[in-house]
This record gives sequence, C-alpha cells and structure tokens, in this order.
Amino acid sequence: MEVAEINDMLPFLLRRENVARYEDGVVVIGDRRKYPFEKAFVRCADVECVARAIEEMVTQGGGPSNAALYALAMAARQAAGNPAARQREILEAARQRLVRTRPTNTALARRLEKAMEVVETCLAEGGDVEATLLHWIEQMRDTNYKNYAVAGELGASLIDDGDGILTMCFAETSFLLALALAKKAGKHMQVFTPETRPYLQGARLTAPSVHELGIKVQIIGDNMPAYVLSQGKVQKYFTAADLVTLDGHVVNKVGTFQNAIAANYHGVPYFVFSWGPDKFKPDRASIEIEERDPAEMRNCRGAATTSAEIDAYYPAFDITPPHLVAGVITQYGILSPYDLQRFFG
Amino acid sequence: MEVAEINDMLPFLLRRENVARYEDGVVVIGDRRKYPFEKAFVRCADVECVARAIEEMVTQGGGPSNAALYALAMAARQAAGNPAARQREILEAARQRLVRTRPTNTALARRLEKAMEVVETCLAEGGDVEATLLHWIEQMRDTNYKNYAVAGELGASLIDDGDGILTMCFAETSFLLALALAKKAGKHMQVFTPETRPYLQGARLTAPSVHELGIKVQIIGDNMPAYVLSQGKVQKYFTAADLVTLDGHVVNKVGTFQNAIAANYHGVPYFVFSWGPDKFKPDRASIEIEERDPAEMRNCRGAATTSAEIDAYYPAFDITPPHLVAGVITQYGILSPYDLQRFFG
Repeated sequence: MEVAEINDMLPFLLRRENVARYEDGVVVIGDRRKYPFEKAFVRCADVECVARAIEEMVTQGGGPSNAALYALAMAARQAAGNPAARQREILEAARQRLVRTRPTNTALARRLEKAMEVVETCLAEGGDVEATLLHWIEQMRDTNYKNYAVAGELGASLIDDGDGILTMCFAETSFLLALALAKKAGKHMQVFTPETRPYLQGARLTAPSVHELGIKVQIIGDNMPAYVLSQGKVQKYFTAADLVTLDGHVVNKVGTFQNAIAANYHGVPYFVFSWGPDKFKPDRASIEIEERDPAEMRNCRGAATTSAEIDAYYPAFDITPPHLVAGVITQYGILSPYDLQRFFG
Repeated sequence: MEVAEINDMLPFLLRRENVARYEDGVVVIGDRRKYPFEKAFVRCADVECVARAIEEMVTQGGGPSNAALYALAMAARQAAGNPAARQREILEAARQRLVRTRPTNTALARRLEKAMEVVETCLAEGGDVEATLLHWIEQMRDTNYKNYAVAGELGASLIDDGDGILTMCFAETSFLLALALAKKAGKHMQVFTPETRPYLQGARLTAPSVHELGIKVQIIGDNMPAYVLSQGKVQKYFTAADLVTLDGHVVNKVGTFQNAIAANYHGVPYFVFSWGPDKFKPDRASIEIEERDPAEMRNCRGAATTSAEIDAYYPAFDITPPHLVAGVITQYGILSPYDLQRFFG
C-alpha cells in the first residue's frame, strides 16, 4: 500500500499530520490529553517546550519520537550560522534534554542517536542541517508507515470473523490498521478496551479511534479484563509495546502484564505489535520503569479521587515475560519472543 | 472484646452508627458516595428512599443489609394500626422492593427473610412489630460485631511483621479490624489499595480508613496489582466477599478475580473475609452478576472520561474459583473453600 492510502485508512488521531508535524520552525503536536473532547494541537517554538509536552503526556506511544526529531530540526534551524562545533554542542544539548523525557520508551533515544549521525555527516559536509534532518525524518516516517501496514496485515491475518479482541492503553497505528484491514476483509469484531487509568488512553484514544473505523467497541474498567475473558467474550489480546528486550520481555503501559496473565489463564493468545527489540536492552534487568508523580493517581480528568493527604504509587509501565507472549508482530513476521535476537540482534 | 470496644477501634466509616441507624421512624445512612470529601448522611422517611439509596450506592458492602432492615422497621411503624393481614402485605411489598436493589449480594435477601420470620411471630402474638424488629436488629448487629472481631483476630494472625497487603474495593469491618489488631500487636504493614473504578471505593473508602488507623497505605490503579506483586511488595491478598457459594466460589467487586489470578501467579495467598456461604447458592451457575448502567463507566466523579457516543460495559462483580482461594476467614476459623458445606451446609 502507498503511504497516502495507509494514512487515509487511519482514524484522526493517528494520521501522520495529526501525530506531529513541522511548520516553518515550529513543532506542532497533536494534544492527546484533550482528545476526544477537543481536537487540539500544542505549538512549540523551542526544544524545552517539546520536552515538556512529552513529559506532560501531550503525546505518547509513537508520538514522542516524532515530536523529538522535529525538535532537533528546530534546534538545527536556531543553531544555524554558528561554527560547526557550536552547532554540535547545541544539538547535543537538545538531544540530551529530549532523551530525559521518557526513561522507559528507548525508541526515542535510539532515533535521536540516528538523527545525530545525520547531523554529523551534514556538519562535516557543510550542508543545511535543518533541511537535511527534515528530509531524513520524512523518509523515515514513510518507511514507518509502510512497516505499520506490514504489521497491520499480519495482525489482520490473526483476527477471525466474530473475534472479541482485548487491548490495553492505545496500541496505535499497527493495531488500528489491523482492525481496519480485517474489517475490509469482511470480518466482524468486538473490541474491549480497558480505560487505562490515570490518563484514560483506552477510554479517550482507543475507543473513539476504533469507533471511528466503524468497529464495535466497549470501554471496560481496568479491573474487568479477567471477568470479560471468563465470559468467553475474548479470543485475542493485542497491545503495542513501549520496549521489547532482546530476550522477549515486553514493556508496555501498566496493566498489560496482568491482562496477559489473565489471558493466559483463560487460554487466550497475547500478540504484541513492535518495531523489534532494543539492541541495548538484553533482558529484564536492563529495563528502567518510569515512576510518575503519585499525585497523578489522585485525580481523574481534574476530579479528585481521594483526600490530598493519602499516598499513592504510580508505576507507568510493567513487564510481561516472554512465556506469556504468543507472538511479536514485526515487519519480519509474527515472531516468537524467544527468536528476536536472530532477526534483530 | 466488647461491642463498644470493637466499635472504637474502627475508622469513622465503619462505626456502627455511621453505617446506618434508626432515628424515630427515619433511616439514617452514611453516604459513602461523598466520602472522604464530606461526612454526609442520607435521611430516609420511606422504603422507596432507602431502596434508591442502596441502588444509587449511598451505601455498599455490609451497609445495604442494615439500611434495608431499618427500612422494614420503618415500614412496620407506618403499617401499625392496620389489620395483621394488611401489615403483612405492606411489609412483604417493602421486603420485595428492598431485595430487588442488589441482585448479587444475597445476604440482604437472606436477612430480610429472617426479619420477616420475626414479623410473622410478632403479628401472631399481636406485638409491636417496629419495636420487636428494632430489638432484633440491634441484637443481630451486636452479634455481627463480635463475629467481625473473631474474623479480625484470625486475619491479624495471618499478617506477619513487614507484610505488604493487597486488597480490593472496601473490605470493610473484619479487614480493618484485622489491620488494627495486627498493628496493636506491634506488626508493621503496608497496604496497597486499587482505586476500584468506577466508584473508587478503594481510593475513597479503603485508603482513608486504613490511613485513619495510622497504617501506611498507597492507592494504585486497578491496572497495577500484578506489577506491584512482581516487585515482591505483596505477601498477602485480602478481600471481603459479596457472596460465597457453597462450593467455594467467591463473588466480589469486579477486579477481585484478576488480582487473585495475579496473586496466584506470584505465589501470594488470597484470603476472603466472609459471613459464610449462601445456602441457596450451590455453585457458579447459581450466581447472578449485576450489570450496571454503562454510562457509569464513562465518567469519574462527574468528569467525562470519553465521548458520550462510545459504548461501555460495566459488570459490577466477578467470580473467583475456589482453587485461587487460600482460605475463607469466618467465625469458625480460616476455612478451606472446599470445606464450607460441612460448617454451613
């Protein structure tokens, strides 16, 4: 499929221009905090603004990588005219600030490293760093969307007519493409999406996006997946991954793991959409789980859920071991979590 | 322990007079929807008001039974002076209305049946039905608090110094007494309480009540128990039960089951506080799970969590099979879920 055709199949939130875009020195980021109540964008004119937008969850999943890359192009524009050494210094500072935003999702760090290689080559050749970076980013995004479609086709092939599908958080482009392609092939589905506290990505992002595709979807509480599984309503469990280790551990939004345990208990296979493992993350011990401000667990869209003096704990991700994973859906196929090293190592 | 002494050990919400009380023809019910933001009470002057209060979650757990019994006493007061047959008719209509409020928690139905036996005897003897019922209710509550204390002592005996304790929803008097008694015995604990969407009983009721006892407590998302278990932070899992079947299936707030699966996966025992099984509920097939209005899953303390056109599903309870239950804590001891029939059958 062509990139434009893929983009057209996607719901509003996942269309390329609505995730993040670059407008003449300004990074424009789709504001997922306000969706579906508002279709808003955050406009950033400096790196710090983009970094804070990522930290404050304006975007998430695949969004931070794109926003951070555009922020680097913006920094290049602002650094232009300086000696190469000074430009490098400015861009390196920008990279470091952007990497610090999300410790768990290392795709962002890896993409920024690649971007810095592009920067180095361009500086050595005396080229226009901003333009070179932007060209590289758009090419990379083209490739990404084509890979999303490959994964989407694989995902669709796993869906049978009449399937109930459990997901968690917002499994993004490959998952939504899988649903869209399965529907196009005449399959009927029913998606169950846990609301995903505290940011409600399941209720706010996944459910409206699936609904936009014309597929039946029901929001459930994060406390309900096992009960829905016990009713025989679910045949497949699909999520994305913020990180997969070389030995097949899946790091994703907290709740993914307990759903995987419950799915396994009920004999339902769990499939993960992933770019592939992080080469620098060999195993569970190498994972850093982001713990966010406990205050975020004491409210829900601005409404207090308890007294201010009560303590809370908010680990943002969890780790699902490979024995609970039936397959990792990548551009190379639906891989065993125990065979990732051979494809990506 | 004496009843007054037991009552004094309890946090605000669970003190006998704050659960429900009878004030000269008016049923006064502690309003758990507003706690901990307000210490409010709903005052009901007729049966319909009490029934609606139960349906609208003004009270829950052990509260509905008490409120419903007082409502029957109120109906008796209002029916007084009529011929016995008419009084019986009025009280029977009241009973039926009250039973319809909560299909899953059958303790309410069973208690109202017993109360109707008291009514019958009193009518046959030409006694004062209101006064007789009130005397019977207070005696029963005395017995209940003594049994809470027995279960609390048993629960406390299961807690080791340094334990992390997972719970779900609001496990009420026996659980809070177990914590208070363990603390009195010099044991240190840390309680993790999932917030329990959509009504947030964990965040609003359990956490402030545990905090009031001076015990460390942290609210977590309903999506976090398995991650907290995987960190080795939890040694025991305790809940109450809305219903236990004769063959040891535990019905409790939705989420209890998936936590039990996750606890089992991590080798953590699950204990249930219960009055004992319902004699008329032999097995899983005999359970009716209350499904509440999906609209309740689309908001959180009044804040919308998604668009109004998105569908939701809200089963209020789930069923944990006996092989995931390490013990049922009753007045007779910490029983195997497979041996309930012998004690209660």
